[in-house]
Amino acid sequence: MSDPKPYFEAHVFCCTNRRPDGHKRGSCAAHGAEKLRDYMKARARELGFDGKVRINSAGCLDRCELGPTLVIYPDGVWYTYRSPADVDEILQTHMVEGRRVDRLMLTTEQRALRPDQRG
Amino acid sequence: MSDPKPYFEAHVFCCTNRRPDGHKRGSCAAHGAEKLRDYMKARARELGFDGKVRINSAGCLDRCELGPTLVIYPDGVWYTYRSPADVDEILQTHMVEGRRVDRLMLTTEQRALRPDQRG
Repeated sequence: MSDPKPYFEAHVFCCTNRRPDGHKRGSCAAHGAEKLRDYMKARARELGFDGKVRINSAGCLDRCELGPTLVIYPDGVWYTYRSPADVDEILQTHMVEGRRVDRLMLTTEQRALRPDQRG
Repeated sequence: MSDPKPYFEAHVFCCTNRRPDGHKRGSCAAHGAEKLRDYMKARARELGFDGKVRINSAGCLDRCELGPTLVIYPDGVWYTYRSPADVDEILQTHMVEGRRVDRLMLTTEQRALRPDQRG
């Protein structure tokens, strides 16, 4: 049996893990990930993405220092995002236009946010 | 900027959504998804997958009738699974051997479990 075609064109996982306050790694929820996930879900619906794009919550994606983080599959592209404006830019540029938001994209080796990524 | 190489070789999302008892779609948690996710995490650790394979919880993946479901990215392969033996088979066959567990794999169009998939 060959692999089936993608069930979702874009499957987004937003880390919403919460660590205790003051944890040295921080956590995505401590940076407002839940509200941003809610905003992304609502905006994706408004953009008519239903059935093609799925916005999901996920447990700890283990890149806490870069959070809030999300990953878009099957592309495998990771983003940091801090604001509704960041969410809008990811939806428009990545999902609608099929390009990348270079400013927010995380590299594989990245372990800390760049200065231009720190909201 | 080109897309970075995959952060995880295999990124597994186990739906652990719980709907109210008696909901007509059922839910993954109602079929034991949380315990199976815990088992999968523990087994992946024992297999030495740390850092290469990530087992995550996810919110509702919207294929409730087929649950518990999981999806493995970047492959984009979906499985139904009901038992620790199913988890072991997915880890061994898909992750270790790079093949597919045909019996448990979901097709894109699938809306109900096949008889051979109903534990």
